Amino acid sequence: MENIKSYINANKDRFLNELIALLKIPSISADSAYKNDVLKSAEFVRDSLKEAGCDNVEICETEGYPIVYGDKTIDPNLPTILVYGHYDVQPADPLELWDSSPFEPVIKNTDLHPEGAIFARGACDDKGQMYMHVKALEFMTSTNQLPCNVKFMIEGEEEVGSSSLSTFVKENQEKLANDVILISDTGMIAKDIPSITTGLRGLSYVEVEVTGPNRDLHSGLYGGAVANPINVLTKMIATFHDENNHITIPGFYDKVEELSRQERDDMAKAPFSLTNYKAALDIDAVYGEEGYTTNERNSIRPTLDVNGIWGGYTGEGAKTVIASKAFAKISMRLVPNQDWNEITNLFKVHFENIAPKGVTVKITPHHGGQGYVTPTNSIGYKAASKAYETTFGKTPIPQRSGGSIPIVSLFEKELKSKTILMGFGLDSDAIHSPNEHFGIFNYLKGIETIPLFYKYFTELKAK
Amino acid sequence: MENIKSYINANKDRFLNELIALLKIPSISADSAYKNDVLKSAEFVRDSLKEAGCDNVEICETEGYPIVYGDKTIDPNLPTILVYGHYDVQPADPLELWDSSPFEPVIKNTDLHPEGAIFARGACDDKGQMYMHVKALEFMTSTNQLPCNVKFMIEGEEEVGSSSLSTFVKENQEKLANDVILISDTGMIAKDIPSITTGLRGLSYVEVEVTGPNRDLHSGLYGGAVANPINVLTKMIATFHDENNHITIPGFYDKVEELSRQERDDMAKAPFSLTNYKAALDIDAVYGEEGYTTNERNSIRPTLDVNGIWGGYTGEGAKTVIASKAFAKISMRLVPNQDWNEITNLFKVHFENIAPKGVTVKITPHHGGQGYVTPTNSIGYKAASKAYETTFGKTPIPQRSGGSIPIVSLFEKELKSKTILMGFGLDSDAIHSPNEHFGIFNYLKGIETIPLFYKYFTELKAK
Repeated sequence: MENIKSYINANKDRFLNELIALLKIPSISADSAYKNDVLKSAEFVRDSLKEAGCDNVEICETEGYPIVYGDKTIDPNLPTILVYGHYDVQPADPLELWDSSPFEPVIKNTDLHPEGAIFARGACDDKGQMYMHVKALEFMTSTNQLPCNVKFMIEGEEEVGSSSLSTFVKENQEKLANDVILISDTGMIAKDIPSITTGLRGLSYVEVEVTGPNRDLHSGLYGGAVANPINVLTKMIATFHDENNHITIPGFYDKVEELSRQERDDMAKAPFSLTNYKAALDIDAVYGEEGYTTNERNSIRPTLDVNGIWGGYTGEGAKTVIASKAFAKISMRLVPNQDWNEITNLFKVHFENIAPKGVTVKITPHHGGQGYVTPTNSIGYKAASKAYETTFGKTPIPQRSGGSIPIVSLFEKELKSKTILMGFGLDSDAIHSPNEHFGIFNYLKGIETIPLFYKYFTELKAK
Repeated sequence: MENIKSYINANKDRFLNELIALLKIPSISADSAYKNDVLKSAEFVRDSLKEAGCDNVEICETEGYPIVYGDKTIDPNLPTILVYGHYDVQPADPLELWDSSPFEPVIKNTDLHPEGAIFARGACDDKGQMYMHVKALEFMTSTNQLPCNVKFMIEGEEEVGSSSLSTFVKENQEKLANDVILISDTGMIAKDIPSITTGLRGLSYVEVEVTGPNRDLHSGLYGGAVANPINVLTKMIATFHDENNHITIPGFYDKVEELSRQERDDMAKAPFSLTNYKAALDIDAVYGEEGYTTNERNSIRPTLDVNGIWGGYTGEGAKTVIASKAFAKISMRLVPNQDWNEITNLFKVHFENIAPKGVTVKITPHHGGQGYVTPTNSIGYKAASKAYETTFGKTPIPQRSGGSIPIVSLFEKELKSKTILMGFGLDSDAIHSPNEHFGIFNYLKGIETIPLFYKYFTELKAK
């Protein structure tokens, strides 16, 4: 791509100001008080896509917030890249912990970002990262360097579960047809260490209820003589891990993808300081499955965690009660090949099997999603890797993320294409937290790197 | 005692009407909106004691609600009985579950009480049972049959923890000096099976807090790699009982009183239907310490129960969080000879010892009390037994209660005397629940039996 650096330099201030204008709109999808702002944000994205050179731009209504669609086809024989992003943001509370107003963006220099960072809700997640793609497109169209076709699909419900997206994708398979999907909604290892997220964990989230006696009982009169649902629940949960922190649900590991030594060695190249990790969390030791490192435990291995537990008297002081019921919310992070419906069912059967006499149990699945993995030998991965190499001067590290992005497996299933996760955010960007920000370096580096992905993907695809 | 039956017969309606007048006063000590009613109740008791023949009657102010004191000394060389009771009542909610208004007493016939029962909050606990003692005194003084000295101490904070009573007892040891303490605030096995509560369990109540990472974490990014405080807490709680449901805290059983085979056989005479017990609680099995029956498990054996647990996300739906902290309220019921302070300390040391790396723990003792036992060979027990034999025609069954009445061990410690628990209530009286009631049969039988205790106690004491 010619002149990209000079183009960015010449337009840098405008790129920032446009993003700042978008960040000023408080498009909080979780709070209906901001409905008009969410819609305003969609219009902003529509207008931006038009200005960046998209031909067909429309606001597609859904049962929830609309999806903004835009495309530019230069030649049906050339490959098509589908860009996904979202224009909605997380709520900003707790407001009192922000150093500046979340919807009045300010640029401040920090130790990590001496050239400045934009502080605002959504700066990184995902308005900033999504807008990099709009500006990258603008560069390619305005300089006549767009090497392939492009489609944009920018939604407004990502922070509340993307509930309308699934229907939209299923109903618009032709419209969304593509050769690869490109998303910037993840992070990179460090400012000078590019990485590509190659794997995401799946999820099975269930709620369990243990019922003992038909009413709350006096612990003096019944204590020790009937099964106490809270004691029983703690005992059941305790058995979910053995002494090596392996999960004990029969069949749980049957389909778990085992990585080769080579793949694990590649992963281990990512810089990681256990000392800093522990210090950042104020813990004296890490904890997890025997035989795996911390970075493996939270990315390539499945887990089971209690996310919430409650039962009995939880107010001030003391009440000598034996509760009739106890509850827990439990989630399992899954790795590629584990099917979340199957795992949910294995959990259910196992939980019922281990319930002792004297109680009954109920298991309610909440939701879930499949894990995902992008092979590092795919054209998409290679194109992304080459793009980073060109702009950062370093081969990016393939990285498994412990989190889940259920839409990625939805895309694979419905659109039959792989997703490349080119994240430019940093762990320190404080997404979902007060003082979210996005480094100007990262923003501009994204705009510089993305067009190279288009170029290399088109070239590799042509081979 | 001469003419007691005819005296009761002649005064039956008045005895009922006086109790009904007392029950009409909503003396709910837990709710400050009823402050004036609680005080009015104290005045009612004061006036009743005067009318029943007490010489010195006074309302003794405390930091909380007053204690009504009254006495009648006929001869300093004769023994003195101290009667304890309380004039405050539990809150009445849920009001919608009452068939009649809780403070508008009504007499209704039931299957168990064809001769009628008084329905009202406090009917049994403890206004009805306390007022039996006032009417028993009236009988003895008005017929010149009082065989010994008597003191009354009726408090107004029993339902909120008797917080002023301890100071009052400590500061008035001479005034309260006695040979035996008599309380009717417990139950009997069945309407035709008298029983005497000979043992109460002690209590140690603690709150525990487990802290892992210094903030709530995303379960996708950290799940499986750090100790989850909820998982850790459940694992710690699960280890408190072994496979036989013995408690595993080192030293916990060291001082536990082991009953003889004979004592256990006596206890086993109490009628008990496991089928009915399970049906009443809707459970398919009981649960508890190996080697003991249900009635032993909830009376002569110490226990450990979680009374409340909480941590993480407990709202609707799902949140993939790893909580920074998890909490539980845990109580241990103790048996005679186990010191609650010592047990609390054993718990604390053990909980700290079993905490794994990666978390810190904090243990906060809430409160506690010693267990209590009255030997069946004591003069007090023998006098009570003989009194029941006379009025019921049956030897009462000595019964251990699983509950705790901390004031009983306070009395023993400060006043150096044993307490006799002559309860006339029934399990079905619904104390602390909607539709509390007290059988007229039980009320009058109490008035008939109590004077006999005075008589036999004085006689046995003189031997």
